[in-house]
Amino acid sequence: MKAEAINFGEKFSGFSEHWKPKIIAQMNDYHFKVVKLQGEFVWHKHDDTDEVFIVVDGRMSIAFKDGSVVLKAGEMFVVPKGAEHKPIADEECKVILVEPVGTVNTGDAGGELTADNSVWI
Amino acid sequence: MKAEAINFGEKFSGFSEHWKPKIIAQMNDYHFKVVKLQGEFVWHKHDDTDEVFIVVDGRMSIAFKDGSVVLKAGEMFVVPKGAEHKPIADEECKVILVEPVGTVNTGDAGGELTADNSVWI
Repeated sequence: MKAEAINFGEKFSGFSEHWKPKIIAQMNDYHFKVVKLQGEFVWHKHDDTDEVFIVVDGRMSIAFKDGSVVLKAGEMFVVPKGAEHKPIADEECKVILVEPVGTVNTGDAGGELTADNSVWI
Repeated sequence: MKAEAINFGEKFSGFSEHWKPKIIAQMNDYHFKVVKLQGEFVWHKHDDTDEVFIVVDGRMSIAFKDGSVVLKAGEMFVVPKGAEHKPIADEECKVILVEPVGTVNTGDAGGELTADNSVWI
C-alpha cells in the first residue's frame, strides 16, 4: 500500500500555465485533475459525461446558454452531460476537476486550447 | 439549468452527527457526500470500488493492514478497491467522500454504524 496523501497546494505549486488540467489521482475510471484558470475558455460540451468543478482558491463562473453560476473557494458544481458551457475567471482561479478518464478539456469544440488529457503531476 | 453552487461550509453546518454521510451532488453514477468523523470507525472494505476521501477541515488518518496515511485539510486519498481500511479522527474532521451511488459506509462489515446511503442534505 503506497499510502501518501495528495496535497492540493503542492500540486498547484508545481505549474503555472492556465487551462491545462493535470491528473493527480484516479478513482476507478475517473480522474481528479488540478487546473489553473484565467480569462475566458471556449464554449463546449461533453456529450457523454457530467463534469465536476471544485474551486480551491479564487473565484470563477461557468456560463450556460440560459444562465450562469458563480463558484468561489469551497464550492462545487456539476455541469450536466451535454450542457454547453464556458468557464470564465477574471483573476486566476485554482480548480479541481473530476471527470472520466480520457475526457478532453475542450469537449466537442476542439481548437488550440485543447490540452493533453494524460499528463500527471 | 438550475445553476447554484454547492457550498461545502453550508452543507457541513446543516448537521452535527458523526459517521453519517449525506449526499450533496451526483455526477453520472457517483455521489459526492459530506461527513463528519470523530473517533474510530470499523474495519471494512469495498470489494467493487475505490473510494475518495477529501479533507476540508481538521485531520484524520486511514489505517490499513500494512500501514496508514494521515490526511489534513486540502489533501485527498484514494482507498483502493478491496483494501481493508479504518478511518480514524482524534478530533472532529470534515470530509468529502466520492464513491458510486449506493456505496455503503461500512462496506462488507455492516453493523450499527451502517448509515442510510440515500440521504441528501
